[in-house]
Amino acid sequence: MNEENAQPPRTRHRPPAAEEGAGPTALALRRVAIDTYRENVAYLHRDCPVYRAEGFQALSKVEVCANGQRILATLNVVDDESIVGCRELGVSEDAFAQLGVADGHPASVSQAEPPGSIPALHRKINGERLDRDDFRAIVRDIAEHRYSKIELTAFVVASNQGELDREEVYFLTDAMVETGRRLDWHERLVVDKHCIGGIPGNRTSMLVVPIVAAHGMLCPKTSSRAITSPAGTADTMEVLATVELPFERLGEIVREHRGCLAWGGTARLSPADDVLISVERPLSIDSPGQMVASILSKKTAAGSTHLLLDIPVGPTAKVRSMPEAQRLRKLFQYVASRLNLVLDVVITDGRQPVGYGIGPALEARDVMRVLECDPRAPNDLRQKALRLAGRMLEFDPDVRGGDGFAIARDILDSGRAAAKMDAIIRAQGARGFDHNAPPLGRLSFEVFAAESGVVTGIDNLQIARIARFAGAPKIAGAGVDLMCKLGESVVAGEPLYRVHAGYPADLEFAREASARATGFTLGTADELPHVFVEF
Amino acid sequence: MNEENAQPPRTRHRPPAAEEGAGPTALALRRVAIDTYRENVAYLHRDCPVYRAEGFQALSKVEVCANGQRILATLNVVDDESIVGCRELGVSEDAFAQLGVADGHPASVSQAEPPGSIPALHRKINGERLDRDDFRAIVRDIAEHRYSKIELTAFVVASNQGELDREEVYFLTDAMVETGRRLDWHERLVVDKHCIGGIPGNRTSMLVVPIVAAHGMLCPKTSSRAITSPAGTADTMEVLATVELPFERLGEIVREHRGCLAWGGTARLSPADDVLISVERPLSIDSPGQMVASILSKKTAAGSTHLLLDIPVGPTAKVRSMPEAQRLRKLFQYVASRLNLVLDVVITDGRQPVGYGIGPALEARDVMRVLECDPRAPNDLRQKALRLAGRMLEFDPDVRGGDGFAIARDILDSGRAAAKMDAIIRAQGARGFDHNAPPLGRLSFEVFAAESGVVTGIDNLQIARIARFAGAPKIAGAGVDLMCKLGESVVAGEPLYRVHAGYPADLEFAREASARATGFTLGTADELPHVFVEF
Repeated sequence: MNEENAQPPRTRHRPPAAEEGAGPTALALRRVAIDTYRENVAYLHRDCPVYRAEGFQALSKVEVCANGQRILATLNVVDDESIVGCRELGVSEDAFAQLGVADGHPASVSQAEPPGSIPALHRKINGERLDRDDFRAIVRDIAEHRYSKIELTAFVVASNQGELDREEVYFLTDAMVETGRRLDWHERLVVDKHCIGGIPGNRTSMLVVPIVAAHGMLCPKTSSRAITSPAGTADTMEVLATVELPFERLGEIVREHRGCLAWGGTARLSPADDVLISVERPLSIDSPGQMVASILSKKTAAGSTHLLLDIPVGPTAKVRSMPEAQRLRKLFQYVASRLNLVLDVVITDGRQPVGYGIGPALEARDVMRVLECDPRAPNDLRQKALRLAGRMLEFDPDVRGGDGFAIARDILDSGRAAAKMDAIIRAQGARGFDHNAPPLGRLSFEVFAAESGVVTGIDNLQIARIARFAGAPKIAGAGVDLMCKLGESVVAGEPLYRVHAGYPADLEFAREASARATGFTLGTADELPHVFVEF
Repeated sequence: MNEENAQPPRTRHRPPAAEEGAGPTALALRRVAIDTYRENVAYLHRDCPVYRAEGFQALSKVEVCANGQRILATLNVVDDESIVGCRELGVSEDAFAQLGVADGHPASVSQAEPPGSIPALHRKINGERLDRDDFRAIVRDIAEHRYSKIELTAFVVASNQGELDREEVYFLTDAMVETGRRLDWHERLVVDKHCIGGIPGNRTSMLVVPIVAAHGMLCPKTSSRAITSPAGTADTMEVLATVELPFERLGEIVREHRGCLAWGGTARLSPADDVLISVERPLSIDSPGQMVASILSKKTAAGSTHLLLDIPVGPTAKVRSMPEAQRLRKLFQYVASRLNLVLDVVITDGRQPVGYGIGPALEARDVMRVLECDPRAPNDLRQKALRLAGRMLEFDPDVRGGDGFAIARDILDSGRAAAKMDAIIRAQGARGFDHNAPPLGRLSFEVFAAESGVVTGIDNLQIARIARFAGAPKIAGAGVDLMCKLGESVVAGEPLYRVHAGYPADLEFAREASARATGFTLGTADELPHVFVEF
């Protein structure tokens, strides 16, 4: 500890650096060919006169300015003129791209002002309640990349479990909507669905979207890629079609086909959320407040008027008990009503993975088989998709309550959903996929039942882990193919699942993981966990 | 949000990389002349076969191994062979120094295993109580630099205000002692003093150490440099003598002179604390639990048997009320008793800065004037130092309770303290300092009273801020020289204080800050804030 601890501002207030191109602080911009991922880095030579005059320190936050663009970066000090010279201002690859100028362009660098919302952050760290303006200021600073990793983490942890009341969650959500782009489809009814996650193989979006779009509802679905799971909807859809589309092209497809299945990363709908996720993921923090703010801000920004939310419950799901699911539903409902978003929440069976395949190509196979009413299609995936689609169809004032399921089933069984999916795939750019010969990893092994019995448990987390070790989602053909599900009887020596991998090393990692724990529990029929599913 | 969110390990478990120097993963180590401060960075070319085979990502945590040394680093991906080639493993300057080998030495790199204590961290984030083994595991991982900035921050924020009970604070403190070096002076009585901080000019250590050492007590005082304040004891002592001494030399000085005043950074007494401070400082988090663990772990590791702790209370001090000070005292007492450390706590007047000068050279001037009983010496600094030294002398079983103050005053007034200070300064390496001509910043301005009245408030934080803007502690001669103190009457137009700076820009920043708020409040004598000081 230091004896004296008066607390002056984190960085010293400096007047803005002299205008770029003029005066003694002008430097020549240089692209330093180092990829620092999402973290902008600026490089200054230790003998650079600006470095010496400004009293910068390594790792301090600086503002780089060139051609009217300003970006924030972390400073590294260089002692090698071949990397950056004394009259140069080096920036990492991504930062250079953001500035959008040529090598050698005049640029300036100055101390970054501390974010204005830091006092509000400190109040939250100390457990105080924040008001709407506090959340606006914090979210704006986060979206503008003004927070350091330390400050971001402090905000996420301080707002964790129980620390935000429902009014604060609404303020946070609303502030996240305000900072991003907001779409307007100029229609009365714009529907979407979302699952809070945690269940491998749960690719219902790829069935629900073609069904409701075939009915004529507007459903501009954007999805994420997997970060910690074996596949996101965007990863699985990418097996079938291009998912990274220019924003304008997406709009055309939606207007023509009433739906799409694209990657949402390009839309900048809730930029603060994208930044927050960068610290929430590594910490596996997924508190109710942050989950609600993240999901509802993106859906509102995407122009949705009606949202169907899927909360799976099970012993290895994100939500483990019915009371917990009901509390979460109430929080979603409160915030949605403040946002004027019509919300329907369904609590579903999250005791085991959905379908057979886990991994992009395996899941695409299951989805296409359901669409084509193939006898090998997994029935649980079909049933869940029909129920969700049915509830969404009931957002249509012309559909009578209770009729949705039958309408959805009719759309699916008549082939109209498959035709709609085909149209969407062709519009986005078909990749050519045959569910009779899916491009699976060429290496595989099977995991066998050690004893006879009834399957009484399938661990979502362990099955996901094994699929990740096998290479999913990076290797599209890698993953786990389940050969039996909850409640089925197996005889000792029968296969439980097959693992596919693209590389020998991956296969071995998956084999070791499944040897430590198969993810399956065998027992007697009366040991099956109960589930109270609402619909 | 991502739809599927099963949570596999943060990094994939890979077998350790092949032995260095053998096999396909051997690379040639290369020093990349980039200073990334305390954050180790490793650089791999995008076409490096190891990078491709291991599936690393930019910013992932890797373990670099060379010559039997292992360090953790953050990965940057390079696209320029002149920075790092395809068969090379680049490391930043500080990381290279830690490995202690020559350029070109064989080295290997592998995915870093996630720290073993992460599950305990998650339990703390979720508000659970941790046990002794949890704290041991967390503190060990922190000391070994296994935590990312995100994880460190999560631990600090989750353990903030009210989140650790007193038993947990003891576990944390004890774990911090265990991970570092622990000194043993082979004496029955090893005394130290510490102030929790927040009061500018509070340089009592530089008076107390010579007094108690002159009495014959062993007082091996190590101090910190300022991080957010205008001067730490180490910064002020450095005006008089060398403070960065090899550890062995420090031991010799202490044995010969019974005391020292050195910088503690080289001793590695509580390495986890040094790491935690790197996130506590930027967040200005100084929770009671972390303060107690930080102070008591360092003192215990330094071999102290008796500690005098100074808790200043005042409206702009760290502790703002008497009940808060008493709660903090109780926590210190509980943990100290568990550590078998004899602790005496004094609650002192923290309503204003101590002495006149704020900044290294100005504070050194005040200290030397007190030691030499110069009539210009600030009386409050003299009185406070005598009272603290008196309490410390009473740790000596041969000193009767209540006699300490008189003994301390006699040691000071007889010149024995000055002689002891002189001996310590010469032993550490005298710099040559004359308090009649202190080396102050050549630029200065004065701040004047806008009205007549009694000084009823001096804001510790604002005065510290102005001194920082003026350049302290980096510029030793910069700072604030107070010309009147609480309770004194001033006439409109009289100077309140003088600001010294070394550079015109600094002078202007300080001038702007003092123009926004002088830090002084003028009023009537009955508006003086009361203070309840215990001794």
